[in-house]
Amino acid sequence: MESVIHKKRIKQIIDRAEILELIRCMEKAFTAYSSGNAVIPPVGTLTFDSPPGDVHIKYGYIKDDPVYVIKIASGFYKNPSLGISSSNGLNLVFSQNTGQIKAILMDEGYLTDIRTGLAGAVAAKYLAPAKVDAIGIIGSGIQARMQLRFLKHSIDCTKVLVWGRSEESLLAYKKEMSSYGFEIETTLSAAEVARECNLIVTVTPSTTPVLDAGDLRQDVHITAVGADTTGKQELDPDILKQAKLLVVDSAEQCREHGELHKVIQAGELKEKSVIELGEFISSKQRHVRKQGITVADLTGIATQDIQISKFVLERL
Amino acid sequence: MESVIHKKRIKQIIDRAEILELIRCMEKAFTAYSSGNAVIPPVGTLTFDSPPGDVHIKYGYIKDDPVYVIKIASGFYKNPSLGISSSNGLNLVFSQNTGQIKAILMDEGYLTDIRTGLAGAVAAKYLAPAKVDAIGIIGSGIQARMQLRFLKHSIDCTKVLVWGRSEESLLAYKKEMSSYGFEIETTLSAAEVARECNLIVTVTPSTTPVLDAGDLRQDVHITAVGADTTGKQELDPDILKQAKLLVVDSAEQCREHGELHKVIQAGELKEKSVIELGEFISSKQRHVRKQGITVADLTGIATQDIQISKFVLERL
Repeated sequence: MESVIHKKRIKQIIDRAEILELIRCMEKAFTAYSSGNAVIPPVGTLTFDSPPGDVHIKYGYIKDDPVYVIKIASGFYKNPSLGISSSNGLNLVFSQNTGQIKAILMDEGYLTDIRTGLAGAVAAKYLAPAKVDAIGIIGSGIQARMQLRFLKHSIDCTKVLVWGRSEESLLAYKKEMSSYGFEIETTLSAAEVARECNLIVTVTPSTTPVLDAGDLRQDVHITAVGADTTGKQELDPDILKQAKLLVVDSAEQCREHGELHKVIQAGELKEKSVIELGEFISSKQRHVRKQGITVADLTGIATQDIQISKFVLERL
Repeated sequence: MESVIHKKRIKQIIDRAEILELIRCMEKAFTAYSSGNAVIPPVGTLTFDSPPGDVHIKYGYIKDDPVYVIKIASGFYKNPSLGISSSNGLNLVFSQNTGQIKAILMDEGYLTDIRTGLAGAVAAKYLAPAKVDAIGIIGSGIQARMQLRFLKHSIDCTKVLVWGRSEESLLAYKKEMSSYGFEIETTLSAAEVARECNLIVTVTPSTTPVLDAGDLRQDVHITAVGADTTGKQELDPDILKQAKLLVVDSAEQCREHGELHKVIQAGELKEKSVIELGEFISSKQRHVRKQGITVADLTGIATQDIQISKFVLERL
């Protein structure tokens, strides 16, 4: 008989977990994906006009695992007016041996938030400059919190400059995230973040660039997390053109959305200069950081959902 | 909070339902699909090599409904050696308004069996000859039972000839299905079924034709239910070439699998002679049955899963 696990219990498991173990678990999501050891069909999508919403079905398996996972995540953008979260989701875990269901993780999107935050920590671990002076966070929502929470465990820097559109949300962010031991400054100017920080994470739902190439420091790593669907974009295309290194979670997926797809489609980027995060982690390249701009474009892949679901399941 | 409904409760609801109401509910699955009033993305598929298995994700929504449905169905063909069913499945029902989950129907594949059986009754209702002398059933498994159980409510004939590969399974079938009021004869010769029956339902997992064109009566309707995945085939291609009328559940899907796809791909069939069941039901054509061979090729569509899930949900 399957078990139904609710968000409260899932949250307890994650809260009690060793974060370094979570980060390692997420690293394996990327190496399994890029090594060809995972079977990941294209993402299923369902869209609604009124009220506007979209549903993504990410699914697949890692070959030597006991389970396969189907993750269903939705965004219904009028929900906040009803007093409920716009994002929602659950992870279904099945046996690779019999197809029988083993667990229904009713995480309401929480595990997607967690695995996305952990992905940022993995990217920073391998791609950030050796000495990070200040962490820049572009965005002040839930994912902006997740990113910083986990970055603490890959990056030795407590100085943070956060950008947001309202003073109110910046203050709330500062208050909450200071309790994790960060010294947080806030700003309404993204250019200021670009000038002061050499590790920047962008986590907005923006459809127009929020970071300009001209404002950036010469040696900086940017992890772009926001552009998870077609139409979203956070980075000035010049950033991508000037970057020394472009890392993506999935080369296939980043051809369709994410930061890179428009420049790739416009033929302004040679695809060979793009490397998958899992491939980068497994390669020798990771030992030598070249000076310059590096970008990690993370759109979210099913192996992340598989890994985080297994992590929870093993600790029930 | 979502509700998890198990197979036992679902079976009770179906057992207590009016079968004519169930058939009407399934009719709407086809008319909604063909009228363009449903949003149904391509089926998601996941396959496993060892042990061999496949998973199909069918999902979508009917535009004026309150819900959308994701159905996950699996077949793991070594399961019987472990004493468990090879097929499995569940239906997830979500709100179209907020994306929140409303119900998890843990039907273990039962609702797929039911909706597939009902589809056969819908096809027979509109396509069988006015006077059916004898119903032929090619196959003696679960779906062969479902088909007959529901045909009783669309066709006024109790004489049945059933074909199977083993005397044992045929006897078990005869014993069980006689209790529904049918006079059942059995045979090991599919040709005998073809000669004696003018309504035939094929429900085998065969990959080579089990019915030959040369054996058929001149005026006969065949509903082919077995070929639900690429590689499966139950009908001699000549049957399709000689047919006066070819009806499919989904024109798009039948181009990829089902009985028709090979002949279509070989260019031996003009696609314009193929009509969707939902279109046929809504058209004037349905009032005049032409003498000759007619074929309904049913591969299974998500609107059937949506309709049957809603039916259960409304009766909880």
